[in-house]
Amino acid sequence: MAKDKQVNQITDMEVDFAQWFTDVCTKAELVDYSGVKGLFILRPYGYAIWENIMNYLDRRFKELGHTNVSMPLLIPESLLQKEKDHVEGFAPECAWVTHGGEEELSEKLCIRPTSETLFCDHWSHIVHSWRDLPCLYNQWCSVLRWEKTTRPFLRGREFLWQEGHTLHATAEEAIKETEQMLEVYADCLENFMAMPVVRGRKTDKEKFAGAEATYTVECMMHDKKALQSGTSHYFGDGFAKAFEIAYMDKDNQLKAPHETSWGFSTRVIGGLIMTHGDNSGLVLPPRVAPIQVVVIPIASHKPGVLEKAEEITNRLKAAGIRVKCDVSDNSPGWKFAEYEMKGVPLRIELGPKDIEKGVCVAVSRADRSKTEVSLDGLEAAVPGLLDDIHNALYEKAAKNLRENTFDAKTLDEAKGIIEEKGGFIRAMWCGDLECEMKMKDAAGVSSRCIPYDQEKLSDTCAVCGKPADKMVIWGVAY
Amino acid sequence: MAKDKQVNQITDMEVDFAQWFTDVCTKAELVDYSGVKGLFILRPYGYAIWENIMNYLDRRFKELGHTNVSMPLLIPESLLQKEKDHVEGFAPECAWVTHGGEEELSEKLCIRPTSETLFCDHWSHIVHSWRDLPCLYNQWCSVLRWEKTTRPFLRGREFLWQEGHTLHATAEEAIKETEQMLEVYADCLENFMAMPVVRGRKTDKEKFAGAEATYTVECMMHDKKALQSGTSHYFGDGFAKAFEIAYMDKDNQLKAPHETSWGFSTRVIGGLIMTHGDNSGLVLPPRVAPIQVVVIPIASHKPGVLEKAEEITNRLKAAGIRVKCDVSDNSPGWKFAEYEMKGVPLRIELGPKDIEKGVCVAVSRADRSKTEVSLDGLEAAVPGLLDDIHNALYEKAAKNLRENTFDAKTLDEAKGIIEEKGGFIRAMWCGDLECEMKMKDAAGVSSRCIPYDQEKLSDTCAVCGKPADKMVIWGVAY
Repeated sequence: MAKDKQVNQITDMEVDFAQWFTDVCTKAELVDYSGVKGLFILRPYGYAIWENIMNYLDRRFKELGHTNVSMPLLIPESLLQKEKDHVEGFAPECAWVTHGGEEELSEKLCIRPTSETLFCDHWSHIVHSWRDLPCLYNQWCSVLRWEKTTRPFLRGREFLWQEGHTLHATAEEAIKETEQMLEVYADCLENFMAMPVVRGRKTDKEKFAGAEATYTVECMMHDKKALQSGTSHYFGDGFAKAFEIAYMDKDNQLKAPHETSWGFSTRVIGGLIMTHGDNSGLVLPPRVAPIQVVVIPIASHKPGVLEKAEEITNRLKAAGIRVKCDVSDNSPGWKFAEYEMKGVPLRIELGPKDIEKGVCVAVSRADRSKTEVSLDGLEAAVPGLLDDIHNALYEKAAKNLRENTFDAKTLDEAKGIIEEKGGFIRAMWCGDLECEMKMKDAAGVSSRCIPYDQEKLSDTCAVCGKPADKMVIWGVAY
Repeated sequence: MAKDKQVNQITDMEVDFAQWFTDVCTKAELVDYSGVKGLFILRPYGYAIWENIMNYLDRRFKELGHTNVSMPLLIPESLLQKEKDHVEGFAPECAWVTHGGEEELSEKLCIRPTSETLFCDHWSHIVHSWRDLPCLYNQWCSVLRWEKTTRPFLRGREFLWQEGHTLHATAEEAIKETEQMLEVYADCLENFMAMPVVRGRKTDKEKFAGAEATYTVECMMHDKKALQSGTSHYFGDGFAKAFEIAYMDKDNQLKAPHETSWGFSTRVIGGLIMTHGDNSGLVLPPRVAPIQVVVIPIASHKPGVLEKAEEITNRLKAAGIRVKCDVSDNSPGWKFAEYEMKGVPLRIELGPKDIEKGVCVAVSRADRSKTEVSLDGLEAAVPGLLDDIHNALYEKAAKNLRENTFDAKTLDEAKGIIEEKGGFIRAMWCGDLECEMKMKDAAGVSSRCIPYDQEKLSDTCAVCGKPADKMVIWGVAY
């Protein structure tokens, strides 16, 4: 069969993890390449995953009082330059529009790499009084960053994301917002996408351009490398001052408000693939899966099989399950391979003998375990089976994270661990940039975060031996 | 009060309709201007209207089997040039990216003005067999067209829209899709936005660049001008051939598939404003309104008033109504003006005397009519009141369309009508471009469409007197 050949074309992840990843992206029909390097097409199945993530987060954002807005695609060069650190971080990777229609523009415009400057410019028009605060805004859009090397989901010159931007009367309120939104991301990753996270704060070297503090959720991929999966930034009043945003407080004093931003992108779909996938293709946790259950009739030419398969499909649909029945003339074996490639969490096989017995066979994509389920109790049983798959995938990923996180007391020890085993390193750090750079140069790892969960491994910096009170997680990052 | 002053700053529509429109856009807090001409910020209230339209259409599209995808933002110049008519139509208004990061690009890239070329390029990769058809795709995004004159909603250099793109095995199927999607737009405008439409086909002069046929829904605004509110295009197999898309049919013949596209944009929010608005501001039909009901407590310092107002707000919320209770310390008069400006369809006033009587007063934004409603029966009554407002707004707009559509037998007659009264002209047309141009030059009207509802007004063209079998609707268009 043509399809079996296709499946066989997937590279084993143990042979070449990067090639395996690319194979899954294309064979599971998540993406296609466009004519411009680094700009990817999200095909229906890939976009449906993003739609599920959008729906989950959008509901959470709105419950917390945020509203959506739409900011322009283009930023004038002069506006981008208003905050010094910010422009230094982003200008080198901007795409520039220089001509509109048949005319050369008097000022070049960059396609937004992120929209802090646009939100601040807008706020400078509309925020005047304490009554105008807080502004709790979000937008769903795409941004462009002209990267040199690109890969589907993980590093696109264009990628889809949401960017939340908020403005508050006080620093306390803004910091609370920054932390709260990181927690929303952690919840989405853990409880919706079955991806365990390490929550923490970035070092000054790794924080967002222009931020006072950046918080992050870091995930470990199957190859033990780190994926920064969502970040939340506290800006203090730096941007507000640069953009002359001021509000009259209740005490009749003119004050500068405090700002945050936070973003979550299609990058996490790359994370989903590299966390749960296997050599048969994609493995999707049930809550984020576009198709949660696929019903496959066996010996479908036998009387009553197709009808029964469609009947249980309709019953599951009525129970709120995202279910598909494949009644095509492809063989069951072809279909098994197809939906394994696409990572559908639960496959239901139904043949004449099953129908006679009043059962069907449910097969988990996570571990291929089979469960015989009574047809009468199907709607009641499937949600539990899906929850089991979510939990199994989460536990497997958590085990990977647990078993591949190692403590190191010295730079040499860290280097040895990375060379021998890979994974995350926990090591004490004095806070000096120089030591952070040495870790990178000697062991090839960057600081992923200063995790919320601190443990005093020793009193001294693993690099320089001076007093240290921060435990940092280090790793090789995507 | 500051707010009363703000309200007073709205220009009367009879004095200056264009200025009235701009005033409503800004005072109702729908938009703000950005630093780039023609790129507008959709503020929370403006974007919430678009979100409601998106949700309505997205559900309809999916019910009809369409799936969402995401195409790249940028089109290489060489790709845009593949279809001759298409590039001629769009190249003059493209914005061009010439630099990425610190490098000049070897080929300039345009920001998508529309995505036919991107979809066709993608389809040329993935469509091989009749099994791959139909492709029923849609995307929600923004596009750029470098217009010379710009206005919020009506003519932006950037605007938000959805663009559906479909590929079919046969011409019949593609034409059916084109017509079906026009009907979806007509339904959304009439039944969701209370905007009556004229359905029809564009003349060759007015059709989309590269299309064989363009269908349109045209609406009449309060100033009797036309707004093209949604279009659906049939491309035949022209694009497929230009992009070398071919599929192997069941009969083992290689064939070119047939294509459609259809789009609906934030322009219709301009249409909503100009159809229903009045000199107190925006008027929103209830089904598309972000806030359907505003509850305003009267004499809210009196015991029990605030509590009762919040109680009925929660009851309406639980009944699925989008409701807001304004408990701020602004005066009732201030609040009345505020929510009239924002076009909230139904205002509920509740004071101590009402509570004593067990009633509240519901005031329609459409005609300010008041209804006393029993508090006990509030959830049951409000949906009916909202439907009444929808129907009243639709009927008012339909009357405007009916009473301002005139028949003309000659060019002079058409010219006289436009000069004296404005509105739509119905006139017979022979089909010649020359006559169409003469209508424009002499009477200042363009052909809006050849409506589905044809009537034989005479046997001869109103311009040249030659035989004519098409009745065309002409008007001044936004």
